[in-house]
Amino acid sequence: MFYIIGLGLSDEKDITLRGLEAIKSSSRVYLEAYTSILMIQQERLEEFYGKPLILADRDMVETQSDEILHNAANEDISLLVVGDPFGATTHTDIILRARALNIPTQIIHNASILNTVGCCGLQLYNFGQTVSLVFFTETWKPDSFYDRVKQNVDLGLHTLLLLDIKVKEQSEENLARGRKIYEPPRYMSIPQAVSQLLEIESTRQEGVLHPDDTLAIALSRVGGGSENQRIVAGTLQQLHDHHPEAYGQPLHSLVIVGKRLHHLEVGYAEAFAIDKVQWRKVASEVYGCSLE
Amino acid sequence: MFYIIGLGLSDEKDITLRGLEAIKSSSRVYLEAYTSILMIQQERLEEFYGKPLILADRDMVETQSDEILHNAANEDISLLVVGDPFGATTHTDIILRARALNIPTQIIHNASILNTVGCCGLQLYNFGQTVSLVFFTETWKPDSFYDRVKQNVDLGLHTLLLLDIKVKEQSEENLARGRKIYEPPRYMSIPQAVSQLLEIESTRQEGVLHPDDTLAIALSRVGGGSENQRIVAGTLQQLHDHHPEAYGQPLHSLVIVGKRLHHLEVGYAEAFAIDKVQWRKVASEVYGCSLE
Repeated sequence: MFYIIGLGLSDEKDITLRGLEAIKSSSRVYLEAYTSILMIQQERLEEFYGKPLILADRDMVETQSDEILHNAANEDISLLVVGDPFGATTHTDIILRARALNIPTQIIHNASILNTVGCCGLQLYNFGQTVSLVFFTETWKPDSFYDRVKQNVDLGLHTLLLLDIKVKEQSEENLARGRKIYEPPRYMSIPQAVSQLLEIESTRQEGVLHPDDTLAIALSRVGGGSENQRIVAGTLQQLHDHHPEAYGQPLHSLVIVGKRLHHLEVGYAEAFAIDKVQWRKVASEVYGCSLE
Repeated sequence: MFYIIGLGLSDEKDITLRGLEAIKSSSRVYLEAYTSILMIQQERLEEFYGKPLILADRDMVETQSDEILHNAANEDISLLVVGDPFGATTHTDIILRARALNIPTQIIHNASILNTVGCCGLQLYNFGQTVSLVFFTETWKPDSFYDRVKQNVDLGLHTLLLLDIKVKEQSEENLARGRKIYEPPRYMSIPQAVSQLLEIESTRQEGVLHPDDTLAIALSRVGGGSENQRIVAGTLQQLHDHHPEAYGQPLHSLVIVGKRLHHLEVGYAEAFAIDKVQWRKVASEVYGCSLE
């Protein structure tokens, strides 16, 4: 059996009992590489499971799946991934490959940002499509995300923005010289995400986002122990200007609040607001929520 | 501490280690009532946890939260819910009440249909807003779901439809006489859901759904042991006419496939198709997917 096991979003205790059983029964256990970079030390997991883990980067999962799947028809093999196996990255390729090799596969699900985002107080029913925001460079500023945010905004829906990470990047020089030296991992911060949003707004000028009139909620490490979780709510400008440390450890996500905002959502999220008065004022005056 | 703990979607082994720890430390553990009806016998859970569970129906969770929260500032109390605490039903009221009483709260997340739906092969990025479909009666056929499906369809997005359940319903006679006798629980089936969709389409005539040209995927009990999971793909008409037993045990969900369909999604979901040839034909000719 080939298992793909979601680890949840915080630490080693977020795995399900079913997931832990599968690991215990497996003769090889792969850990998708950026999982360990993001939240849990590989050594800590190995100690917890009582067995060694084989690091597998995205490249390996995508291009060397036969190695991972080797003999999985006869023994149990597990691949551990952060969040849910169908969360931010999908694992379609390796599952299709297993299918082609007649290897039975079982997905062991877990929480992912797509449902834990509900802990900010916004109703999951009121979310539109999820959108990814990638790092801009000097020469490459892809703005297709703006159209998707606009589609949600036009319908009054909230937008979950997943912020980019860069892991195992090579500098141009190292790449040119074929040296396998990698840059330190980079995670898009909330202020940087807001900057990119407002930069495209100022280019496109379609009135989708506004520094002072658009409400948003920043999240990090939601779903695990409350000691790691951070939720911060405010206008885009407030989130931009807020202390970077307030957002906690990566990964970060950002929710753009849509106009189909309910007063209960406003009240719940108020607990996370940088400035409660301003939060309610914008919700009431700009979003048209009737708050008593 | 007041814990709200997601149980996941299948059986007792879908709880996380963190969730199980919280249960073990709790002096009272409530089980949200329809959880047990839906998937797990209360007795089985009690045996597994080694402690008794107190059944709490939705009413109790919503209106008698002070009883549940009693003394939670000084001891651990847990409320168990199916899926994720912020999944299909939210628990905003009781969390706000705990907040007002200065009771610390921790949410222990788990998989919910909102992310496990990815196992049908459709990309979660391509889903629009989630929509609920309630039971029609002779005199009440609310059709606002149709507008939301249309919004998704117009954007080419997939729609996750959550199908209604009726638990603790009273007949009109029993209600009138104040007798607390409840009807057996009812779960909307896939054929019934399709009937309701097509009924409203034939009334509204806005060309959102078509019996033979709209693809859809039915899901049940996804995320747990593969023995319970059912995924069936086809046109709306095929799903309507298919053997009801093929859909497995409730809860059922239905995905309306949007036009932003990728050929990899088609290929992955083909494994679940009632008729693979027809599945590919509609994907190619109606949805415009280029399949090699």
